[in-house]
Amino acid sequence: MGTAGACPPPPEGRPAGAPAEHDAWTPAERDAMARALDAARLGPRGANPLVGAAVLIDDEIVAVGHHRGAGTPHAEVDAIAAARRAGADLTRAQLLVTLEPCSHTGRTPPCTRAILEAGIPRVIHAIDDPNPQAATGAHALRSAGVEVCSGLLAAEATALNARWLECARSRRPFVTAKTAMTLDGRIAAADSTSQWITGPAARAQGHALRARVDAILVGSGTLAADNPRLTARLDGEPAAQHSAAHQEATQQPSAQHPTAQQPTPHQPLRCVMGLRPVPATAALRADDNWLHLPTRDPRQALATLADRGVGHVLIEGGATVLTSFLVADLVDELLVHLGPLLLGAGRSAVGDLGVSTLADAHRFHPDGAPALLGEDLVMRYIAAPANPIPADHR
Amino acid sequence: MGTAGACPPPPEGRPAGAPAEHDAWTPAERDAMARALDAARLGPRGANPLVGAAVLIDDEIVAVGHHRGAGTPHAEVDAIAAARRAGADLTRAQLLVTLEPCSHTGRTPPCTRAILEAGIPRVIHAIDDPNPQAATGAHALRSAGVEVCSGLLAAEATALNARWLECARSRRPFVTAKTAMTLDGRIAAADSTSQWITGPAARAQGHALRARVDAILVGSGTLAADNPRLTARLDGEPAAQHSAAHQEATQQPSAQHPTAQQPTPHQPLRCVMGLRPVPATAALRADDNWLHLPTRDPRQALATLADRGVGHVLIEGGATVLTSFLVADLVDELLVHLGPLLLGAGRSAVGDLGVSTLADAHRFHPDGAPALLGEDLVMRYIAAPANPIPADHR
Repeated sequence: MGTAGACPPPPEGRPAGAPAEHDAWTPAERDAMARALDAARLGPRGANPLVGAAVLIDDEIVAVGHHRGAGTPHAEVDAIAAARRAGADLTRAQLLVTLEPCSHTGRTPPCTRAILEAGIPRVIHAIDDPNPQAATGAHALRSAGVEVCSGLLAAEATALNARWLECARSRRPFVTAKTAMTLDGRIAAADSTSQWITGPAARAQGHALRARVDAILVGSGTLAADNPRLTARLDGEPAAQHSAAHQEATQQPSAQHPTAQQPTPHQPLRCVMGLRPVPATAALRADDNWLHLPTRDPRQALATLADRGVGHVLIEGGATVLTSFLVADLVDELLVHLGPLLLGAGRSAVGDLGVSTLADAHRFHPDGAPALLGEDLVMRYIAAPANPIPADHR
Repeated sequence: MGTAGACPPPPEGRPAGAPAEHDAWTPAERDAMARALDAARLGPRGANPLVGAAVLIDDEIVAVGHHRGAGTPHAEVDAIAAARRAGADLTRAQLLVTLEPCSHTGRTPPCTRAILEAGIPRVIHAIDDPNPQAATGAHALRSAGVEVCSGLLAAEATALNARWLECARSRRPFVTAKTAMTLDGRIAAADSTSQWITGPAARAQGHALRARVDAILVGSGTLAADNPRLTARLDGEPAAQHSAAHQEATQQPSAQHPTAQQPTPHQPLRCVMGLRPVPATAALRADDNWLHLPTRDPRQALATLADRGVGHVLIEGGATVLTSFLVADLVDELLVHLGPLLLGAGRSAVGDLGVSTLADAHRFHPDGAPALLGEDLVMRYIAAPANPIPADHR
């Protein structure tokens, strides 16, 4: 084992105490971290970061692992298990991981414990975990005598989880917005009819998504117009096609084949945002698991949700609420469902963003592969690291 | 060989002279036509019909074929070739084909000749070819002593090519509309900037499409705003992803890897539709291969194009022209390119369609699989057999 808390010079002559710069790492370490980043990208997007790990022994990558979604082993544990299956001697290994290992017990035991139990003497993580709950991982490992270094391929690791890191730093929930619209961007016809722009398979995916988030939020206008229940149900047909989006929707235990109309086991906190009071007859008052957010300020709404322990909120509309989150650059992930229709008129999915020229458009990056659910086109996007915010909304 | 021009009773007791109804066919014939329909669906969509064929001998399907796009063997020839490779005795065969065999020489020799040369004694086609140039196929075969029947799985065969059949019957060109828009259905920002909503790979696909059509049409407003050249060039990056849409775009000889900025060998007729005169300085006047269509009536524009021998026209915009074709239900195929952007304001891709309620929306069916070209989402749609036409446009 190396000296606790410091990175000694490697065999190939990295000077002692050199900053963790690109040329301070061995080619094998760089390759291993690149492999860990590639593995991370195999994981499902959502409110959790993408994380990958690789195990390096004598400049040879003996195992790679990644996180496969909430409730499954973290990347470090996955890679360690793979190395054990390969018969590797972990007491001679370096573990490379794209994010600082956690030291807290969430839905899974802390990664630091797995690393210590394996006897791994050296850990390199690309970037620190900004989450104060998790961020004692490096310290915990160093205290136990493990050599811990960081900064290798940090730019790539930051880009991989840019929006998640921003959420963690600002201690706000991760925001997914879902919109079901026509090919020409309408969410309702001129006479306000909107049921159904998308078909049962896409709607079933929407319910599966509800079952994965901590809270679901609509505006008071949508409440008044639709009086939605906002429960997670599987009353559409099961989504029939395989795609990245669908896999994520169906791999969650809570979404596994409930019978028709049956509420899923996990129900999100049902939230209404807006200044109007919530009528006593509102369907979402069915039980106590709901909340009125009497504000038009999305930052304030997210702060309240963070105080309630919400880590992932799903915005389902309407256009006013979605637009307010977009204008504040608070939409981290955008799930687009496009029905095979043209309306030519009616309510637009997105209102005025304060954007007047193309260069200022809000920009997203496709995440995963597009899919057809029934006849509806489904695509998931991650917001660009920063989108324009008009001066009066900063 | 059977009696020329009539379908005699089959061995299993179909009454002589019985109409070609569903229960008048043997199970083997029905199975073979179903296989031919399945094969047809493997072909590329476009201005040509999807056609499949199967060869049946002693109630056994010995070969299946389909049409793979302009300039390649027709389905009948493809199936006959497959049967020959399988060593089948075609003088004992029935040929089942989803559309009446052609008897004219287009880019390939007539199918009737191939059938006669093979000595096939009996042909069953699902539906007649409404094209007067091709529709003498059944007659030509009967005159040569082949037994010809029709009507088997006619409804399925009609549905397969509903929009193409409508074009053929009304003797108008097949209309493909292509639109490049943001996720919220905008084709330009509020200040009219629109370059580029989609990236180089999607734009290259657009140029490959131009190289496959007979004519390309824009409105006089687009001409005034953009002064487009309307030539087919490959000045974008080559499309890098495999998808149904991309395969069609790249399998055409004219689209195969020209060097950057090089015009493709085939150039479409460049058309401007609208009452405004075409300025002497318009870029599309570069050579004589252009046409002014001084009308706002899409039917009149198509009639003129049909007279010029145009079988396939590509509408590239702007919104006024696209809307006029949609309102008249004259868009047969819709190619949608979606850039990963939100604008919230600006010019909509589609104007007023006279649709006020969701049930009257213009409806399309996805055709093939969605794809990402770069970061742009690409999907091809076929129009529903009939879309609403407001009373004043009928």
